[in-house]
Amino acid sequence: MSRRALVLGAAGFLGSHLCRHLLESGWTVTALVRDARAPYVVRRLAGIAHDLRLVEGGAGDEGVLDRLVADCDAVFPFAGRSGATRSMTAPLLDLAANGASQLALLESLRRHAPHVRTVFPGSRLQYGRVLELPVVEETPTAPVSVYGVHKALGESYHLLYARVYGVQTCSLRISNPYGPGQDRADQAFGVVGTFLATAARGETLRLYGGGHQLRDYVYVRDLCRLFELAVTRPEAIGDVFNASGRGGTSLREMAETVLDVVGSGSIADAPWPDDAAAVETGDYVGSAAKAARVLGWQPAVSLQDGLALTWAELRTDLAGTR
Amino acid sequence: MSRRALVLGAAGFLGSHLCRHLLESGWTVTALVRDARAPYVVRRLAGIAHDLRLVEGGAGDEGVLDRLVADCDAVFPFAGRSGATRSMTAPLLDLAANGASQLALLESLRRHAPHVRTVFPGSRLQYGRVLELPVVEETPTAPVSVYGVHKALGESYHLLYARVYGVQTCSLRISNPYGPGQDRADQAFGVVGTFLATAARGETLRLYGGGHQLRDYVYVRDLCRLFELAVTRPEAIGDVFNASGRGGTSLREMAETVLDVVGSGSIADAPWPDDAAAVETGDYVGSAAKAARVLGWQPAVSLQDGLALTWAELRTDLAGTR
Repeated sequence: MSRRALVLGAAGFLGSHLCRHLLESGWTVTALVRDARAPYVVRRLAGIAHDLRLVEGGAGDEGVLDRLVADCDAVFPFAGRSGATRSMTAPLLDLAANGASQLALLESLRRHAPHVRTVFPGSRLQYGRVLELPVVEETPTAPVSVYGVHKALGESYHLLYARVYGVQTCSLRISNPYGPGQDRADQAFGVVGTFLATAARGETLRLYGGGHQLRDYVYVRDLCRLFELAVTRPEAIGDVFNASGRGGTSLREMAETVLDVVGSGSIADAPWPDDAAAVETGDYVGSAAKAARVLGWQPAVSLQDGLALTWAELRTDLAGTR
Repeated sequence: MSRRALVLGAAGFLGSHLCRHLLESGWTVTALVRDARAPYVVRRLAGIAHDLRLVEGGAGDEGVLDRLVADCDAVFPFAGRSGATRSMTAPLLDLAANGASQLALLESLRRHAPHVRTVFPGSRLQYGRVLELPVVEETPTAPVSVYGVHKALGESYHLLYARVYGVQTCSLRISNPYGPGQDRADQAFGVVGTFLATAARGETLRLYGGGHQLRDYVYVRDLCRLFELAVTRPEAIGDVFNASGRGGTSLREMAETVLDVVGSGSIADAPWPDDAAAVETGDYVGSAAKAARVLGWQPAVSLQDGLALTWAELRTDLAGTR
């Protein structure tokens, strides 16, 4: 019998890729979305919608959760709100979306489905400014944005419920994820997607602060493999893992690779906007050693290859909508 | 001109003592309470109600906050919900009371009153289980209760708003506070108050786990002096301080002192109730060295003296209600 997954926020960037990955791995997938006919949902789930059990509802709706969790083997609580800069302008909304929603899920699991595995989609932004690279999981966390604070909160909930109630969960602190489908103008959805979309229009990629800041970029399909391991390997339970890419790349280097892959666009320096500067963490490169050691996971896709794959899909999309 | 304080949750244990202390120190005090005629409010504010500017309203009500903060020099956000065990049975309520309320206040301050000083009433429960005593502020925090998670969250908000917006705040991680007015049957309000009330009835103080667990008890009037320093000394801003008592005392030793002071009651061992065991941290003794070094504060009242003072008030109350 195939394993049954419940994906909350299934039409999000990460959620939609995970649905695809789980279907390919033989899972039965229930996908919760707010509105199955919304254009972005239709677009994100194109090609897999008929293989999913699509359910409409709010991920924070207790009745919906209680009913759905009892009926699955693993739940992926990906519904939430992205973006550090954005979190500063609507902090209480961010709390509801990224904090309270996780607590509601954990309450549902401990009451109705203690056998169900889950995993928290954490963020490298939990760490805040770091002094030593690469960053290991023992590094103290001191977030510098409301988003980072709420990701730390969500993780605290998951670890607490694992310890006190035996809820079978763990946390992945995701670096900069990228891949097809992230091509939104709003940088809250990831700088890689923004840069690809900008270059595709032949416009200028703006690098703040010289573009020297290091990041590690992790390809979304690599991430999906790790999320599957996180809800299937017993070693994961109660623990925290960096979900990091294959080492550090400067923003400038990433931008140059984007120009290379897309074949258009240009690069220019730009001053830091105040709102982005306020939540900037400085260099970040996570160590993926623990996930390798404990879960046998390694990010397989290089930035060059990942950007090429992402561009290939984006180009097809752009051709289709022209 | 006298300084103007706004105390949220002014009828709480800590809030009512702070109102008294601030009045004695020459402050003008606005006291926000939910219902000025509720019996516990009348009792807690007995003797000072006429010296306060008493305002009715919810501490989470944006309109109320925006209006009141613009009109004061310091705000003490003490409205909240006590009790680690209790937080586990109503975690979302605890989030609203101890987390969201702090975020709402900070938003109000950054928008309407950036000149106003404030201070977060944190808790030693933010640390969770600790390995080394006494605990210093650099110790990583890993709370083992929803209450502890939300106290850590509140502190994160305060430090973030200090860093990003220049809100003039700091955090005090309070050990076990005790003093007059804490004599409720519910242990959420402090084990010292519970023990005194129990002994006064000539009943048995129940010690879980042999009573060997170390705690540090801090007398409420010592705490009030520290809270005043926290909103007046510039060195406090953006920093975190333990608000600890004068060293470690075992639960049994504290209970024996209670019997001594009260002159009635008895002690018996009892097994840990499951709900209390789940959130138990083990020994805790905080170091008050940083508050001494930076703010010049030291807890002055010994446990013996503090219990005697507390018992003197409780005895008078009991005589009055007989």
